[in-house]
Amino acid sequence: MASTASTEHRTDPAWLPAAAFRPLGARRVRVAGDGPLVGTVRAEVAAAVAGHGGALVADGPVDLDLVAADGDGEAFTVERTGGTTIVRAEGGPGLLYGLHHVVRRGEAAFDGDLPAERHAPRRAIRMLDHWDNIDVDPLMGQVERGYAGGSIFYADGGVRADLGRVAAYARLLGSIGVNRVALNNVNVHRTEARLLTDLLPDVARLAEVFRPHGVAVHLSVGFAAPITLGGLPTADPLDPAVREWWERTTAAVYAAIPDFGGYVVKADSEGQPGPFAYGRDHADGANALARALEPHGGTVFWRAFVYDHRQDWRDRGTDRARAAHDHFAPLDGAFDDNVVLQVKYGPMDFQVREPVSPVFAAMPGTRLAAEFQVTQEYTGQQKHVCHLVPQWSEVLGFGLRGGEPVADLVDGVVAVSNVGDDEFWTGHPLAQANLFGFGRLAWDDRLDPAAVLDEWIGLTFEDPSVRGPLHEVLDGSWHTYERYTAPLGVGFMVNPGHHYGPSVDGYEYTQWGTYHFADRDGVGVDRTRATGTGFTGQYPAPWREVYESVGSCPDELLLFFHHVPYDHVLRSGKTVVQHIYDAHFAGVEEVGRMREAWATLEGRVPAALFDRVTALLAEQARCATEWRDQVNTYFLRKSGVPDERGRRIF
Amino acid sequence: MASTASTEHRTDPAWLPAAAFRPLGARRVRVAGDGPLVGTVRAEVAAAVAGHGGALVADGPVDLDLVAADGDGEAFTVERTGGTTIVRAEGGPGLLYGLHHVVRRGEAAFDGDLPAERHAPRRAIRMLDHWDNIDVDPLMGQVERGYAGGSIFYADGGVRADLGRVAAYARLLGSIGVNRVALNNVNVHRTEARLLTDLLPDVARLAEVFRPHGVAVHLSVGFAAPITLGGLPTADPLDPAVREWWERTTAAVYAAIPDFGGYVVKADSEGQPGPFAYGRDHADGANALARALEPHGGTVFWRAFVYDHRQDWRDRGTDRARAAHDHFAPLDGAFDDNVVLQVKYGPMDFQVREPVSPVFAAMPGTRLAAEFQVTQEYTGQQKHVCHLVPQWSEVLGFGLRGGEPVADLVDGVVAVSNVGDDEFWTGHPLAQANLFGFGRLAWDDRLDPAAVLDEWIGLTFEDPSVRGPLHEVLDGSWHTYERYTAPLGVGFMVNPGHHYGPSVDGYEYTQWGTYHFADRDGVGVDRTRATGTGFTGQYPAPWREVYESVGSCPDELLLFFHHVPYDHVLRSGKTVVQHIYDAHFAGVEEVGRMREAWATLEGRVPAALFDRVTALLAEQARCATEWRDQVNTYFLRKSGVPDERGRRIF
Repeated sequence: MASTASTEHRTDPAWLPAAAFRPLGARRVRVAGDGPLVGTVRAEVAAAVAGHGGALVADGPVDLDLVAADGDGEAFTVERTGGTTIVRAEGGPGLLYGLHHVVRRGEAAFDGDLPAERHAPRRAIRMLDHWDNIDVDPLMGQVERGYAGGSIFYADGGVRADLGRVAAYARLLGSIGVNRVALNNVNVHRTEARLLTDLLPDVARLAEVFRPHGVAVHLSVGFAAPITLGGLPTADPLDPAVREWWERTTAAVYAAIPDFGGYVVKADSEGQPGPFAYGRDHADGANALARALEPHGGTVFWRAFVYDHRQDWRDRGTDRARAAHDHFAPLDGAFDDNVVLQVKYGPMDFQVREPVSPVFAAMPGTRLAAEFQVTQEYTGQQKHVCHLVPQWSEVLGFGLRGGEPVADLVDGVVAVSNVGDDEFWTGHPLAQANLFGFGRLAWDDRLDPAAVLDEWIGLTFEDPSVRGPLHEVLDGSWHTYERYTAPLGVGFMVNPGHHYGPSVDGYEYTQWGTYHFADRDGVGVDRTRATGTGFTGQYPAPWREVYESVGSCPDELLLFFHHVPYDHVLRSGKTVVQHIYDAHFAGVEEVGRMREAWATLEGRVPAALFDRVTALLAEQARCATEWRDQVNTYFLRKSGVPDERGRRIF
Repeated sequence: MASTASTEHRTDPAWLPAAAFRPLGARRVRVAGDGPLVGTVRAEVAAAVAGHGGALVADGPVDLDLVAADGDGEAFTVERTGGTTIVRAEGGPGLLYGLHHVVRRGEAAFDGDLPAERHAPRRAIRMLDHWDNIDVDPLMGQVERGYAGGSIFYADGGVRADLGRVAAYARLLGSIGVNRVALNNVNVHRTEARLLTDLLPDVARLAEVFRPHGVAVHLSVGFAAPITLGGLPTADPLDPAVREWWERTTAAVYAAIPDFGGYVVKADSEGQPGPFAYGRDHADGANALARALEPHGGTVFWRAFVYDHRQDWRDRGTDRARAAHDHFAPLDGAFDDNVVLQVKYGPMDFQVREPVSPVFAAMPGTRLAAEFQVTQEYTGQQKHVCHLVPQWSEVLGFGLRGGEPVADLVDGVVAVSNVGDDEFWTGHPLAQANLFGFGRLAWDDRLDPAAVLDEWIGLTFEDPSVRGPLHEVLDGSWHTYERYTAPLGVGFMVNPGHHYGPSVDGYEYTQWGTYHFADRDGVGVDRTRATGTGFTGQYPAPWREVYESVGSCPDELLLFFHHVPYDHVLRSGKTVVQHIYDAHFAGVEEVGRMREAWATLEGRVPAALFDRVTALLAEQARCATEWRDQVNTYFLRKSGVPDERGRRIF
């Protein structure tokens, strides 16, 4: 792609190296149709055939026929007959997705016959949120919870002049079917607020870069923008002047960016302003913005992450896990059609293990999106290998309401991006697989995570012999991370603030509502209806009963729902405390095996990538050992129960 | 003072308000002698008599006769006979100190007869170290461990243009006999390193401001300055080029500031460079600088705060408390005469309670200074009232070696200043009493802390009725702070990094060597020779035996020296765990009584000061309650022992 040439020498091609286009590039290919996305497809094909000896032809016999109908259809049909592979797309985006379907298949796309097979995304909303700031925060850096360098969008106090890197990113997103991106942090600071107004021409420049890849841009906006940007005395969502300000401001956005996607809003959360200040509810708040967007076809993504972040740790009655359901379930049906309530996958905050949020089952009259973190805030911060696609697959496939999986209860899948200006995009090169897998799963949640990973490996690496070791490193890495960190779903136990590394009591006496209540006798949070916070009652049957009972609660969530003695015997047959010891020793051993598997890849993957991963695995081993020793020591000191196997605990 | 006029309107006069000069200012006063300090005394008297109706006269009968001999003598004799109070000073500094002696006495200085009484400082070195930086650190602010705003010395990337505030500070220091000040942080960063070279003209400006108050300026320097500033390939203290660089650089300093005091050095400590890198010891390092200073009469203050700050918490064999003695005691006798080894009062780091450092007893052939923190890093950060003068008095009076008090084992008393550009100088207005008290105790460690506080109250406040309530607030505040924070000398239990507020396990699994080893059975650090780290062996008799035995170890240091079960009975008759509960409940109750006493002062102290202290006492009460509840909950959960009195623990 011409637009990425300026940065190709210093950035990793991720899953779209030239070699990935070899099968297609060696063929005769026709591209038929009109519009910007068809143009993108044509340019991709032109570049591929130029590099690999094929040809882009206008007629005559072809190996690959890429045909797009007019419009914005995202689906495509692929078949192979008479030696020609034919992609018939229902619109420009469908053609782009069809092209990359063929790229992913590789040589197999040109082999034998294939009956017509229609591919359509399982949902219209497949989105990445960037928590990027223009200004660099001395503590958080430029990207909040970002672990891959600075922002690819912003530098030197504004939108970058050179958007070559953004173009390469847009191309990566288009290739996996991501069709929406939010450009700035949901915590909207002063400078970033101006993206909505005087920096709008720069947002339009970004939109131009994303548009050819089928990606619509969004802005995070502050609920108080009518005051802070508009100079009004109030941001009351029912105030006519406020509504008029949002309408006028939004019309100006659409005048500059006709296909603008909409707004993302974190309101009344962790200090952000919101409708509560005016005695209004979140439906009032969301609808005010929705009505400004509606004439232009835009959407409000309203986050359900609302809880008391000034909780008193002494107060056992308040349960942060209840907050989203308590706040939002009563509002079901009150939100406009162009509001999407963005719900974190679990009731707390992107822990390695949480139960699925009961909100997904509680709001049939509201459009919902499930929110994940591709960025690894609590899962190793892209210093640790933690392949999260299995987690997302498990959540989306979870039969929450009458057996209906979460995937069928939501209109969208949204995640926080893990990308920055690091040469490998994601800091840890293997974290690219999370970004790739997110897009693939957002397109079709029924895909097998291991198969998706296999696609990523095949595209990214030339040498087919790397598959085995890479699966060994990545496949089980989520469970490995779970084993050596906080046990049995209890969560947190991280260092406060930055959230890297262990601190068992780090959040125990804080305002954040994140406690484990370990004492000399036991550990865990009683969230039952019978004796606890009643959170289990937010679930539909059968989960309200499954989670209520210690006997039926899954082991991996036991401490999320129950406070149990250390000698409580898990369904696995182990006591809780012995499980803690065993899991932590096992987790560290597994990291050792990951390192061994990785070491075999020297010379078979690019040297810079090999070295980066090797160094990060050493840090992962160090940090996992620290987790093991701190958690095991903490529970040995507290419980007094020795390890059955007599291993060294400090 | 003319030089302070520009800032008087916005800064608190501290203990030198105009009213404090009323008794003297209403009299006929003669000032005889020459030199800059005599000039300062004359200006003070001129200002006082102008405001209060007295007269500065050259001859004739006088009420107060201030007579200085030539030279730098610091002592003075005061007597009163025939209606005249006569101060005969042995030099300019002595006259200044004699003047302020008269000011402190107030009307009593002019009442009845007084036989001649000689006052001389107990030691020549009475010093305040500023941990001020030129550049503002995003985490630490401008003053490292400073809790009173920015630096009074630096602004906008350099030394302030307007040094009016510095002049007022120098006047305050002169009035209490402090005669040395270090101008910059012992952690010497890039910009601040240049104070030694190209910013030297600005240091000379500061020296000019301090000089009339008898205060010599010092710079903290980096051991690697020959490399970083000099461009040499090494900072090896035995390298001739390095020595030549220090000689040349130091000569340039003295050319600009003939009465420059010397250098302060933190070497091989917490990441600072030092002689270890070159296979040299600390005597080699200190002496290299000492020899450059010696021809000019300068002194090296070499900090003994050297320990392994990358310790493994799993390693029970390493004991940070041992470090200063282990590193320095073997070097006794090896330091040049113009080296002063600056030793923190306790073996750890400025905790509210530590045993006295055994280093004071171990180095009879070395000049030593005891280092305190007037800045309240671990003692409430000038949000809490914590009057520390009784702590310093206790340490200086402690009979460490053959009954000899620490005060007699040291040549100097040094403290980290608690001053910033806050309008009250010290953030908490009552923390001024610590600064005042430090100076007075440095002059004479045998002064009664309550009497010193009484002097401060008398100078600072006009209304004599405030004495009682102020004593009630301040007198016992050190012990109150001790009661509601870490128990029985165990220390730390603070939030890592910033060190404010409780975190019982905050430092338990870190690299810093600061552990309490609490488990379900007991708590404390075994530092005995019999079964622990052997730290007790660093003490001379009788302390090596007193501390070694659980039976003889003082309660307040029990957990510093011993790991004991929770049901261990203290000399007080209470169990350890019951003591923890009781002390924490008592501490919070005492804060309540402090607030009540303070509340009675409304209308009797300036309104702005009243409001500031009232607000800070509310924060102290909140934070003390947090300490109480976190510490008590932690130990209840761990020990399982209920409070005998059935009070609420969470």
